[in-house]
Amino acid sequence: MSGFVRKKFQGFTGYVPGFQPPDLGWIKLNTNENPFPPSPKIRKFLSSVDFSLLRKYPSPMGEPLRGTLSGKYSISQEKILVTNGSDEALALLFLALFEETDTVICPSLTYSLYPVLSGIYGGKIREISVDADFQFRLEDLESADGKAIIFANPNAPTGTYFSPEEIFSMAEKSSKLWIIDEAYADFADREKSSMLDYPERLNSAKNIVVIRTFSKSYSLAGARIGYLVSPDEEIMNALYALKDSYNEDYLSLMMGELALEDFVYYENNIRIIKEQRIFMKSEMEKMGFFVFPSQANFLLIRPHSLNAGAIMERLKDKKILVRHFNTQRLANYLRISIGSPEENRGLLDALEFIINGNK
Amino acid sequence: MSGFVRKKFQGFTGYVPGFQPPDLGWIKLNTNENPFPPSPKIRKFLSSVDFSLLRKYPSPMGEPLRGTLSGKYSISQEKILVTNGSDEALALLFLALFEETDTVICPSLTYSLYPVLSGIYGGKIREISVDADFQFRLEDLESADGKAIIFANPNAPTGTYFSPEEIFSMAEKSSKLWIIDEAYADFADREKSSMLDYPERLNSAKNIVVIRTFSKSYSLAGARIGYLVSPDEEIMNALYALKDSYNEDYLSLMMGELALEDFVYYENNIRIIKEQRIFMKSEMEKMGFFVFPSQANFLLIRPHSLNAGAIMERLKDKKILVRHFNTQRLANYLRISIGSPEENRGLLDALEFIINGNK
Repeated sequence: MSGFVRKKFQGFTGYVPGFQPPDLGWIKLNTNENPFPPSPKIRKFLSSVDFSLLRKYPSPMGEPLRGTLSGKYSISQEKILVTNGSDEALALLFLALFEETDTVICPSLTYSLYPVLSGIYGGKIREISVDADFQFRLEDLESADGKAIIFANPNAPTGTYFSPEEIFSMAEKSSKLWIIDEAYADFADREKSSMLDYPERLNSAKNIVVIRTFSKSYSLAGARIGYLVSPDEEIMNALYALKDSYNEDYLSLMMGELALEDFVYYENNIRIIKEQRIFMKSEMEKMGFFVFPSQANFLLIRPHSLNAGAIMERLKDKKILVRHFNTQRLANYLRISIGSPEENRGLLDALEFIINGNK
Repeated sequence: MSGFVRKKFQGFTGYVPGFQPPDLGWIKLNTNENPFPPSPKIRKFLSSVDFSLLRKYPSPMGEPLRGTLSGKYSISQEKILVTNGSDEALALLFLALFEETDTVICPSLTYSLYPVLSGIYGGKIREISVDADFQFRLEDLESADGKAIIFANPNAPTGTYFSPEEIFSMAEKSSKLWIIDEAYADFADREKSSMLDYPERLNSAKNIVVIRTFSKSYSLAGARIGYLVSPDEEIMNALYALKDSYNEDYLSLMMGELALEDFVYYENNIRIIKEQRIFMKSEMEKMGFFVFPSQANFLLIRPHSLNAGAIMERLKDKKILVRHFNTQRLANYLRISIGSPEENRGLLDALEFIINGNK
């Protein structure tokens, strides 16, 4: 023991991300990546970018992406913070907002990074139990004692979803801070699926923070682009003061902007993913899996006979990756990202083989 | 007052980076950027990269860059952490190591981010006064009471420098943690200018952390690539557990690796910058400035008659940016990055005009 590390972090266990194989040739359905490439505008940009600009520091204010987001969503720039993936936005929030003794309310099933961040930065997590169908009610979050509420919407790893109107209606009469992590919002079956689609309501409700990412719907997980929106001036001032000066790199700021400009390309991909979500649910149900309804780009399934962990291992032998969480609650479940039609076909064939081989 | 922000961060002032003009056409000598473009290998990479890989998350372990660093410096991979610029490495260290009551010793003039990070994460800064020439002695850091020592080497904004041997000799008999921020080490006039050039000594001294960046000597400030090396297993475990899972983006991990492979290209640029450093010191001395000897890619100068802030403003009118720090100690000084020969000529002409126009 050298003893240089703070007591609370000696032997500390962080968030464990899904396996990222270094080689190609996998059907990778374990981290909810988008099966389609980013916009062709990004290929064009990379092949013609003036690479000498990399010698200079990027914009500390996240430009030009921040300005483009501001225009797209009619939200003024100082209410937007561009971050190095949405994980950085979440980490900065926990750092800026929560004393050790502050209570942060979340459903008992949600993105498992939140309790890790409370262990690092502050806040005591208070979990509101989800029901047998892994559902929860906004009323139950609101009626618990605490400073803030956080959950993913659509939720992970379940895919349940509340409309922005439902959340606004509850948050507007609340004295708590509502932090809505919209990583998967573009996959919900609604024309206006995000809180950002309601700028007037968002601007007048000061107790809301919305977090978005380019990792899922924009096929840019590798570029680490996220952002946070809040009309609360104090929160935004604190986040800007706490973040690293140059937290987002130049190429990502440019690629994020280009992605926003090509939403037509992405809308088509999202449509295919949603169609595949319906198809996969139906096919896996035919095989005897219980499949939760999902508004995200993944499905949570429960095998009917075989052990979930064993299925995960047997799929891995076939170079197919799905996610199995090492928690008691989720021991019997698998979370499977919606891949391309070809990848999904490959998964179904492998599952068929595994199930029939065991009958 | 909405009151959602933690008490200690209400009205908190962060680090203020040098001005980054959004437009081109400036002679930009205010943030110690490298005047030369990155390696041509990076241009080639960007124009031919399989951009569809951006849809996937990058390596959470910083590969392939970490492996290449490991080979180049003969340091095993688990002792290396790749970060989103060296600022992230510094922030993670302050978070992981310092309780509120721990004392962190640094010279009274060094990178002004350290006190900001102690204000955010923990540690009380104890400053050891530099002398009239802005020099300090390692003995004086070691003999102060505290848990850790931190400084930049070469130091900023002064350019003073200790050889790795001097630092090893002092640290090896110390019970404190020595954190050496080597952002500018490649510009020092020594063949082995970095602690990393002594892997055997580094590996056996457990109480040393070395921080590096690709922003200066590798002309990649825009890509946000830094890394940290420590032989202390507990420190490395804590840092890996605390960092964001995917803290460095895919393109930067690849570009960092390519930059390392093209050190010959960079050595030539560094040689020119060092020659220009000698030339600029001599020319500015002829104009009557006091110029500190510097082992970095900048010079700290003190005007002999005119006010430093006024010179900074008049240079800005001519679209030339230099750095003036708003502290009492440095009120009479300017820090000027070494630019390309053309940029340096432009600066000298402008200074000449400003001085003569005021005689």
